[in-house]
Amino acid sequence: MPAYEPPVSEVLSVLREVLVPEAEGLDLPTLEAVLAEGGRFATRVLAPLNASGDAEGCRLEQGAVRTPAGFPEAYRQFVAAGWPALSQPERWGGQAMPRLAQLALDEMIAATNFSFGLFPGLTRGAAEAIARHAAPELQERYLPQLVSGAWAGAMALTEAQAGTDLGLLATRAEPRRDGSLSVTGSKIFITAGDHDLAENIVHLVLARLPDAPPGVRGISLVLVPKFLPDDQGRPGRRNAMAAGALERKMGIHASPTCVMHYDGAEGWLVGAPHRGLAAMFTMMNAERLFVGIQGLGIAEAAGQAAADYARTRLQGRPPGVAAGPPQPILAHPDVRRMLLTIRGFTTAGRALALWLAMQLDRAEEDAEAEGMVALLTPVVKAAFTDWGFEAAVLGQQVLGGHGYVRENGLEQMVRDARIAQLYEGTNGVQAMDLVTRKLAAEGGALPHRFFALVRAALQAAPEPALTEALNRLEAATRHLQRKGAEPAEPGAAAAEYLRLFALVSLGWMWLRLRAAAGPSGLPHHRRWRQAADFFFARLLPQSAGLAAAIAAGPATLMVPAEDVF
Amino acid sequence: MPAYEPPVSEVLSVLREVLVPEAEGLDLPTLEAVLAEGGRFATRVLAPLNASGDAEGCRLEQGAVRTPAGFPEAYRQFVAAGWPALSQPERWGGQAMPRLAQLALDEMIAATNFSFGLFPGLTRGAAEAIARHAAPELQERYLPQLVSGAWAGAMALTEAQAGTDLGLLATRAEPRRDGSLSVTGSKIFITAGDHDLAENIVHLVLARLPDAPPGVRGISLVLVPKFLPDDQGRPGRRNAMAAGALERKMGIHASPTCVMHYDGAEGWLVGAPHRGLAAMFTMMNAERLFVGIQGLGIAEAAGQAAADYARTRLQGRPPGVAAGPPQPILAHPDVRRMLLTIRGFTTAGRALALWLAMQLDRAEEDAEAEGMVALLTPVVKAAFTDWGFEAAVLGQQVLGGHGYVRENGLEQMVRDARIAQLYEGTNGVQAMDLVTRKLAAEGGALPHRFFALVRAALQAAPEPALTEALNRLEAATRHLQRKGAEPAEPGAAAAEYLRLFALVSLGWMWLRLRAAAGPSGLPHHRRWRQAADFFFARLLPQSAGLAAAIAAGPATLMVPAEDVF
Repeated sequence: MPAYEPPVSEVLSVLREVLVPEAEGLDLPTLEAVLAEGGRFATRVLAPLNASGDAEGCRLEQGAVRTPAGFPEAYRQFVAAGWPALSQPERWGGQAMPRLAQLALDEMIAATNFSFGLFPGLTRGAAEAIARHAAPELQERYLPQLVSGAWAGAMALTEAQAGTDLGLLATRAEPRRDGSLSVTGSKIFITAGDHDLAENIVHLVLARLPDAPPGVRGISLVLVPKFLPDDQGRPGRRNAMAAGALERKMGIHASPTCVMHYDGAEGWLVGAPHRGLAAMFTMMNAERLFVGIQGLGIAEAAGQAAADYARTRLQGRPPGVAAGPPQPILAHPDVRRMLLTIRGFTTAGRALALWLAMQLDRAEEDAEAEGMVALLTPVVKAAFTDWGFEAAVLGQQVLGGHGYVRENGLEQMVRDARIAQLYEGTNGVQAMDLVTRKLAAEGGALPHRFFALVRAALQAAPEPALTEALNRLEAATRHLQRKGAEPAEPGAAAAEYLRLFALVSLGWMWLRLRAAAGPSGLPHHRRWRQAADFFFARLLPQSAGLAAAIAAGPATLMVPAEDVF
Repeated sequence: MPAYEPPVSEVLSVLREVLVPEAEGLDLPTLEAVLAEGGRFATRVLAPLNASGDAEGCRLEQGAVRTPAGFPEAYRQFVAAGWPALSQPERWGGQAMPRLAQLALDEMIAATNFSFGLFPGLTRGAAEAIARHAAPELQERYLPQLVSGAWAGAMALTEAQAGTDLGLLATRAEPRRDGSLSVTGSKIFITAGDHDLAENIVHLVLARLPDAPPGVRGISLVLVPKFLPDDQGRPGRRNAMAAGALERKMGIHASPTCVMHYDGAEGWLVGAPHRGLAAMFTMMNAERLFVGIQGLGIAEAAGQAAADYARTRLQGRPPGVAAGPPQPILAHPDVRRMLLTIRGFTTAGRALALWLAMQLDRAEEDAEAEGMVALLTPVVKAAFTDWGFEAAVLGQQVLGGHGYVRENGLEQMVRDARIAQLYEGTNGVQAMDLVTRKLAAEGGALPHRFFALVRAALQAAPEPALTEALNRLEAATRHLQRKGAEPAEPGAAAAEYLRLFALVSLGWMWLRLRAAAGPSGLPHHRRWRQAADFFFARLLPQSAGLAAAIAAGPATLMVPAEDVF
């Protein structure tokens, strides 16, 4: 496996030169130092455990989950270095760094050890839900431990019969006399539901109270710890919950995906009764951005590994050269096409994600920023994970047959990247969220506010290919916002519309990157310019086919009878 | 895992109703009976070993490769039933069925047990090379055994430093006094290089004679058996060759991918000295069609599995329905889109492959047919394996998180399908073959002969979307055929050009399928009509973006400096 180079200088260049107005007031020198340290942690501690973790996997022994060799020690170092607390509030022991620092760290972790990143990622999600919705005494008891990483978190949503359709879930939560709840039921697909990294694991479980109305309006959120804290707040009595099985999966083998059984487990309500989904969804934007970043991290890692291979693998000769010794395959146009397709996502995708992370930091006091977060989050989650997977597949293709062999690492990236398109709401669910809720938000004005940003950038730096794609996106948006459309219209357009939206969003960032570079001869400016030219000439024209598919409407999807499929 | 339904009636309907002029004279009742029996073999014998073969994999024990449990017995039954001989010449014990029978059988094998299909696939390739190029005494000695399947075949091309660039290979073949050759060298990626299915394995090894010129014009083809036949033609003395290692791979775990060492192994020249590549390439069309069919088989299996899931998984409600019990997810437009995208490939792809198989049968006496085979083979190899992989990924997506879990089978299909894009010449190599050799063939007239077929079908049954795509393809073809283009022009266009070519080829078959269906109310006619409508409305418009990328030329690929990648 070639060495991974953390993209720290790229992050800083984007903040210093491209996202200039948005990044005003950020302490960039501190950020740079922190990310450099994070990059060292990722490459020195996490990367060496990636292939071995995949090969060994997790196992369930006498009811307890064991992670692969080296993972407990790596997590101990991760906690000792303070990484779990990076972007958490100071009140609970956090370092209150901006979310973009978290994002850049998460990218490097996903690039070097995708599975490892899920443990702190879920812990952060649980902490955020508790910080926003739990009673003060629960916050005092749990947040310092979760923020430090001494305790870990898990989210228990899915049941066998209730995946995307959470209204079907059946786990029960019965009140006890002391005000706590007794939780009974079985959950599946619980990432990090049990493991040996932390001394306690705090589950947030979706369950129904006895008087719950049916459907999604009758779901409550319940905090259920693996060990009940004693009077000193230390892990005490074992709760009535256990991992019943581990899924055997395509990838992320070092991340245990548990079947969890709760058998009258003791828990406490978080947020209002029957309002559990709303409580869960307030942290969903951050979680979905996190998953999108996993796609970005894998794409960057795959691109670097494939480019390294292409620079050193000698096969054939450049176009127009008939004889002579073999040359690096980077000379071949099709190899360049594959590598630039990856780059066409990563550099602008990172800039877009940094921009979105800044919006997320502002969202609580700034409704405009909040709207942008709501709009772009499904786009980033779905498109970044699709492109992340596609980048891993392209990177693997650059290696030819060598990409199919385990020891070269690319095939693990493909297997690991695949999950990000499926969990945290499948990418189809993201697309539906975009074309229904998000297009209707602010009376339909929300997407047009975003398009105005792209238009403004185009006025400052014209690019006909982007103007054309934006025109297509705006037309598709108006089409989907029309009243009286068929009920199947949004769903029929959803996947292609999200991809079109994502392409325009990337184009917006490539425009800003190229404009910031200007005619400068600095290497990173030249790189931005050359990659942007490729994006506009070769990738953005996909918008034509997407627009045509959207315009075709739902008929050819909805007319076919069941036996056509 | 849901049951796989062999598409036998679909094959027969296409031959009886769509490929009518081409299929004249075929014995369709016999074909139907043979394929029905082949389908039963695939579903009853091969399918049950697919998941277990993946989980167990092959192992190397004391220099001998062991296949997973059940594979030797399944192969014994396969030979006993006469399947290896299906399309082989009668002279060597074959049944001389047309190639399309072989193709339809290979599709069902790939759908039910991708790994298993490689053993007879390679044996057939070896037999074909020997039948065409070896001396009569070698043919007498080896062909009856290979045709019956009692002995297996293997192709030993790749070396560590020589993959796509076979000119770099270094394995030596030194003449002995008795006219045989002594072969010394190491090969990698040798599929079925050693195993326990057959009593002997006949390797065709690319090697250099002592007086060989450098490069690809100095490569000879050498027959090297694992056991040297004795006077009775039975496997006798062990040859000086052995599997040194097995690759650990992403998929096809039941197919051993061997590092092979030849240490003065005894062999015999096949074909003329230094003309080994030409001998190898005469059978390449059939091998590449075979690999394309593997993509088709996986796509059909993934589509069937995903559709079964979508018909029975209850989540959410159809568009426009606000309340009520959960409905099958097949009601959701985006699920239909994914399933129809798979179907948009499989039905027309199968028809195209059947058509191409008939051309291949005629190619020896019909130069026009030979040209079509040459033209369409790289298209089918690359596009069918790309679409096969994409179909497996889409099928997996239909299952959501359940698709990521091993027991549901889709994730194995994704891992297995991936190899077909990489071996037998990567898909990038196929695209280069198309845009260079094939566009130049017949003085540049060859592709236009194919386009004339599509034009004629359009005159009989107009379809504006296909006319537009064909216009784009013809324009791109003329662009690439222009003299004086930059050397990098073909390579820069290759991948998108092949995809555009493949879309138009599928469109041609959808047009013929829909025209054959007419307004008939028969179920399979309605299916063809409805799927064709989807293809033209939602998939074929991808041609716009592909044409734009081709037209953009090589500049944005070739200008970027090395550090952009």
